[in-house]
Amino acid sequence: MNPASGVLLTDLYQLTMLQGYHDAGMDDTAVFEFFVRRLRPGRGFLMAAGLEQALEFLEQLCFTSAELEWLASTRRFSPALLAALEKLRFTGDVHAMPEGTVFFPDEPILRVTAPIAEAQLVETRLINLLHFQTLIASKAARTVLTAPEKLLVDFGLRRAHGAEAGLLAARASYLAGFSGTSTVLAGQRFGIPLYGTMAHSFIQAHDDESLAFEHFAHAQPDNVVLLIDTWDTEAAARKVVALAPRLAAAGIHIQGVRIDSGDLAGHARQVRAILDRGGLHDTVIFASGDLDETVLRDLLAAGAPIDGFGVGTKVDTSGDQPWLDCAYKLQEYAGRARRKRSEGKATWPGRKQVYRYFDAQGRMLRDVVTLESDPQSGEPLLAPVMRGGKRLAISPSWDEIRRHASDNLTRLPEPLRRLGEASYPVEISPALLALAAQVDQHS
Amino acid sequence: MNPASGVLLTDLYQLTMLQGYHDAGMDDTAVFEFFVRRLRPGRGFLMAAGLEQALEFLEQLCFTSAELEWLASTRRFSPALLAALEKLRFTGDVHAMPEGTVFFPDEPILRVTAPIAEAQLVETRLINLLHFQTLIASKAARTVLTAPEKLLVDFGLRRAHGAEAGLLAARASYLAGFSGTSTVLAGQRFGIPLYGTMAHSFIQAHDDESLAFEHFAHAQPDNVVLLIDTWDTEAAARKVVALAPRLAAAGIHIQGVRIDSGDLAGHARQVRAILDRGGLHDTVIFASGDLDETVLRDLLAAGAPIDGFGVGTKVDTSGDQPWLDCAYKLQEYAGRARRKRSEGKATWPGRKQVYRYFDAQGRMLRDVVTLESDPQSGEPLLAPVMRGGKRLAISPSWDEIRRHASDNLTRLPEPLRRLGEASYPVEISPALLALAAQVDQHS
Repeated sequence: MNPASGVLLTDLYQLTMLQGYHDAGMDDTAVFEFFVRRLRPGRGFLMAAGLEQALEFLEQLCFTSAELEWLASTRRFSPALLAALEKLRFTGDVHAMPEGTVFFPDEPILRVTAPIAEAQLVETRLINLLHFQTLIASKAARTVLTAPEKLLVDFGLRRAHGAEAGLLAARASYLAGFSGTSTVLAGQRFGIPLYGTMAHSFIQAHDDESLAFEHFAHAQPDNVVLLIDTWDTEAAARKVVALAPRLAAAGIHIQGVRIDSGDLAGHARQVRAILDRGGLHDTVIFASGDLDETVLRDLLAAGAPIDGFGVGTKVDTSGDQPWLDCAYKLQEYAGRARRKRSEGKATWPGRKQVYRYFDAQGRMLRDVVTLESDPQSGEPLLAPVMRGGKRLAISPSWDEIRRHASDNLTRLPEPLRRLGEASYPVEISPALLALAAQVDQHS
Repeated sequence: MNPASGVLLTDLYQLTMLQGYHDAGMDDTAVFEFFVRRLRPGRGFLMAAGLEQALEFLEQLCFTSAELEWLASTRRFSPALLAALEKLRFTGDVHAMPEGTVFFPDEPILRVTAPIAEAQLVETRLINLLHFQTLIASKAARTVLTAPEKLLVDFGLRRAHGAEAGLLAARASYLAGFSGTSTVLAGQRFGIPLYGTMAHSFIQAHDDESLAFEHFAHAQPDNVVLLIDTWDTEAAARKVVALAPRLAAAGIHIQGVRIDSGDLAGHARQVRAILDRGGLHDTVIFASGDLDETVLRDLLAAGAPIDGFGVGTKVDTSGDQPWLDCAYKLQEYAGRARRKRSEGKATWPGRKQVYRYFDAQGRMLRDVVTLESDPQSGEPLLAPVMRGGKRLAISPSWDEIRRHASDNLTRLPEPLRRLGEASYPVEISPALLALAAQVDQHS
């Protein structure tokens, strides 16, 4: 058995609460929902992502003997609880919005229905997985809306927060509409298209910039994108023009150049002119360096002749807003609806569904959050994806996920597509308001 | 052999450049250094972290047969390169600042000296590891300086950016002076002390708040910290007082209560009064909820009677500044110093050392960045840690690392200790300036 299942990637209190539920004989069915409480200023919508990894986690949930031995060694848990953990698997149901769905605060994107020990234990890692990919897909979607005609490639692994962040940021940004990533593991693991150019070190290691270009072109004849800002951007562009005929004679086409520093719009204009004068009309210009949707909007507004962007740090860390105010909260236990009323953090009780309404052109009009038991005429956004711990369908293909995400972005109201401060109407249904009032009276 | 070595967690261009170096017959020794280019406004210093994981990564560097087969399947690389990769291990030298060392922009904290293919290939993951832990240790150190007398516990796993970010944020914050973490895996893997209370769901799952407290206390008699803000904070504090004698009769002491919402200072004052009136003078108050050094400073200035803090999202994401402007740059190849001069991103060439000067009281005065070949009278901060791919010493203990970090924070100039905008003098030596001028002339 694998010495590490990943189940210890959790908060200590999940395990101490399991001891509490166990000792109190509490093993009824619990319903938890994951949702975002509120958007921070400047953001108008979110894009759901991370469901695939969340379901994988639930399917594989178990404690290995090494993990149980270690837990026993902490003397925090009773032998009876440890025996129960040894048998514990996830046997519950999951409802969720498909990845790529646009959603808003107060709308659950995932619901877990399971014996309370199972539903409680998975809280930390479920949040960890859903929060991060949703954060990045939402940020990347803004970039896609800003530059829909451009090649957008994730370059962010180095400054992503660790290994998994880099890998899953590549996934979340591709899901949201990026063309690919530079992260090799994301190509191997997820089949995401890979892109790459060259680093300054490759140029610096040569005594001569032209020779560096030539070496690289011969080594990667199908992928010749030359980095031209190591010393003098325009001088390097002229070297590219000078080199082109010799490479063409060897059957090698210079696909593009990359600019990574300075005034990107200004350099791009000068470089475009140099390339055009040299007859390299179809050599594209690729730019990188602290880009996100705000910088891209300015570059495009300035008419910068840039064909593609390597987008890194600011998307892979969601640099301007690196977290979402999200939660996974108990909404029902033992058949009774529950809520907390902590100041500023009150929750809506019960098992919920979200219905979406569209106008005649198919654009989103408004959403209604209500109880599952209170069907409405709109399009329901949550669907069953796991029953009794087993998935109900194979994972959707990249084509399906990306088409769904793209379709959702297309259907956004125009002010949200333009990344305005517009707010979208999300209505809490009378049935849900009534249940909340009833729960409050009781408690 | 392990099917995944982690080596594919890299940017595509590292591998395409390796093809370029290979085809051009370039296999001389390269020197790369990792450093931060500049601090963003509001930050005065950084704390080095991540070296342990960086060295582990270098020691284990290899391609598995599964990885090589996959690389071959992409048709991007020659059979000769793949054969070279099969044999590739890290055989170089590493110099570094010990973890917990305070440092500043332009000061390398790690230097790699190795055949260029090895030194190039490791760039992405080295940055990924050093950047993240340094980011978090630097943020956590600010929190420690703000509340040196308080219990500080990392609660951030759920909103950290993925699994590794959660695990390594626990490590980096403990390194910087936190008391522990709620992340169980960090306890198992790194021996970091674990802390935990209970979640709202535990309270909500009970029909009665007092009964929930009682169940938890009996299940975790040595760790009774009760969450009191689920419905009405002060009412819950009174329930804690009422419950105390019954628990005391069972030999159980209520160690603390936790407040997670609302006006933390106001609630803490009222709760303190309720507990004191009830004779629970040594039941401590623990607070959590979107805390960082700014919020802590305000709470302490307001005289809030809070004994400990659960610090989560804003430290584990370094929420106000979620990345550092850091780089890993070629400084020498084949015995010749190198630099790039890209606008705003120029680097200092050559193999460098950082010397630190202190005043009579042992407080830091100034640093000098110079060439390794230009020894100064100050304290050198970089030391050899790996030679020929082997570590020169066993990893320092937590005691050693934490004492070093604490000592470094103690020696900070007073304005930096107070987290002011103060800037610390970092001098570039005449020898280094001369080398840069000489490199520029040549290129």
